[in-house]
Amino acid sequence: MITSRDVARLAGVSQPTVSRALRDDPKVSEATKKRVRDAAVALGYSTSPIGRALAVGRSTRVGLVVTDLENQFYGHVIAPMHRELERLGYELVLITESSESGPVTEHVMGHGLCGVVLATTTVDSLLPARLRDRGVPFVYFNRTAQSVQADSVTVDPEAGIRELLREVIGSGHRRIGAIFGPRNTSTGEQRENTVRSVLDEHGLALAHRDVLHGPFDFATGFGGARTLLDREDPPTLVLCGNDVVALGALNSAAEMGVAVPAEVSIVGFDDLPTSGWALIRLSTVAYDLDEMSREAARLIVARVEEPDARPRHTIYPSRYVARATTSSPRA
Amino acid sequence: MITSRDVARLAGVSQPTVSRALRDDPKVSEATKKRVRDAAVALGYSTSPIGRALAVGRSTRVGLVVTDLENQFYGHVIAPMHRELERLGYELVLITESSESGPVTEHVMGHGLCGVVLATTTVDSLLPARLRDRGVPFVYFNRTAQSVQADSVTVDPEAGIRELLREVIGSGHRRIGAIFGPRNTSTGEQRENTVRSVLDEHGLALAHRDVLHGPFDFATGFGGARTLLDREDPPTLVLCGNDVVALGALNSAAEMGVAVPAEVSIVGFDDLPTSGWALIRLSTVAYDLDEMSREAARLIVARVEEPDARPRHTIYPSRYVARATTSSPRA
Repeated sequence: MITSRDVARLAGVSQPTVSRALRDDPKVSEATKKRVRDAAVALGYSTSPIGRALAVGRSTRVGLVVTDLENQFYGHVIAPMHRELERLGYELVLITESSESGPVTEHVMGHGLCGVVLATTTVDSLLPARLRDRGVPFVYFNRTAQSVQADSVTVDPEAGIRELLREVIGSGHRRIGAIFGPRNTSTGEQRENTVRSVLDEHGLALAHRDVLHGPFDFATGFGGARTLLDREDPPTLVLCGNDVVALGALNSAAEMGVAVPAEVSIVGFDDLPTSGWALIRLSTVAYDLDEMSREAARLIVARVEEPDARPRHTIYPSRYVARATTSSPRA
Repeated sequence: MITSRDVARLAGVSQPTVSRALRDDPKVSEATKKRVRDAAVALGYSTSPIGRALAVGRSTRVGLVVTDLENQFYGHVIAPMHRELERLGYELVLITESSESGPVTEHVMGHGLCGVVLATTTVDSLLPARLRDRGVPFVYFNRTAQSVQADSVTVDPEAGIRELLREVIGSGHRRIGAIFGPRNTSTGEQRENTVRSVLDEHGLALAHRDVLHGPFDFATGFGGARTLLDREDPPTLVLCGNDVVALGALNSAAEMGVAVPAEVSIVGFDDLPTSGWALIRLSTVAYDLDEMSREAARLIVARVEEPDARPRHTIYPSRYVARATTSSPRA
């Protein structure tokens, strides 16, 4: 790769003069600047990490595969990931996974991405195997697929769920309902399994009819809460697969005139900024989503730059944040 | 550019056979498929718009320049713009405008973008002139700069603001405060000027001390509402520069224990999905942000494909949506 030393040699100046000339320092004469620039152009030297990556024939574009860009969860992922990638000299390309098969793979392959962060993996996704077969580096974000090994950034939900259940059971809840995420995602599955096994330790179980599943979106929570709260004898607490689902549930309760937490308690998972608003004050399980998004950026860049390193798995701890949507059950 | 006609000629088949062979139609024999594929590869023919653009040596990457990806406004811009660009065979690259000068321009130039949508233009932005000078096509989104002509997609706030002010003045508000957007943005300036001139028609004016300015974000509304509502004699209505500012103001009022709309009415601008939530019900000025974002995608693609077409300006109408954050002023 061409360095500023090569430019200095060709231009017949010192290495510091190359830097000064290229950043247009007034202390360098116009004639010298021209000589340095000509040398840089002749050699294909670039001052930016992007230019340098291009010089070694590698793209600096990292794809982030998401489903639903309107979902506020992704805004809080994209912003820090984008900043971290930019800091590392890479850029973020958004890819929407409209269908599971061809198109996404085609996109990834066709656009010369150097690597991909997968934020939408389902346990039966074909994409991880396709990327592996084509030698495209990737990192699992939040969700993983067992079948194909890769670097991953995930949350361990256990501590948060354990603390949450101890608290709500301690305050008297026995009849607990749930609107879990999709059964074919590792996050949905792991949160549900953790809830069931911790409840079991307390000698409790979820009634089959009180458990719903759906995509991690507002509509799932909105419709799910309506289904559960419309019953003659609804659960006293509704656990939601994530905060966006819980926000749907909260708004559904408000629309039905069901008071939260007086008539029903609602809990989320993610601790998005909106959940902390004075008008929302959602009790939820928190972890460092911002740091997690930046870590995904660092892992994919490390993988691109060192394809043969051992797989890395960063796991973030979780904790329960009690706010205003939980209380003792109604008498 | 290579067309399916060229492939047909080289393979010695009809043009429809080329299409059928390339989409793996079972009615075409394997031998013919092979001949067609060989011809396509020999000629560098591509069935995808991306491939065709590459064939004419042009990138299909459109940059979207934003400031704050965490701001929920941008999520509702990015999602439809991304979908529309994808439909047209282009892809979206996010660029954060961290600083006004060098970096963004360097980014745009260094990444081989075919065009740019500018969503963060200030009236004194240097970027439009830089893009023009380097021949990079761009479209103004929402905000414009007078100094450099380009295609634009904007909102005409007048109808919405006129209707809003007629209604709140009719219901008795006289002492009106405002937390406007930044003075150096066309949107901030235009909304403020429209409010002032319509108030003037009603024989009213904003008191200097009741008018605040700041970035279009949550913190501006949160801090601004605290400043206005902490007074002994606060305004009875607070107009906000946009919905995100209004959401900050609503949450600030909730935290201060000031009842909305009983003690103060609050109005936004944008009608984001969150504003329609049962827990929020923000009165606001609405326009078709989704369609506007798709139109920006169409305009930049049209400009990339036809650089010499006349500038196009699409202007969207606005209307007032009265919800639960406005009522008559307290007695």
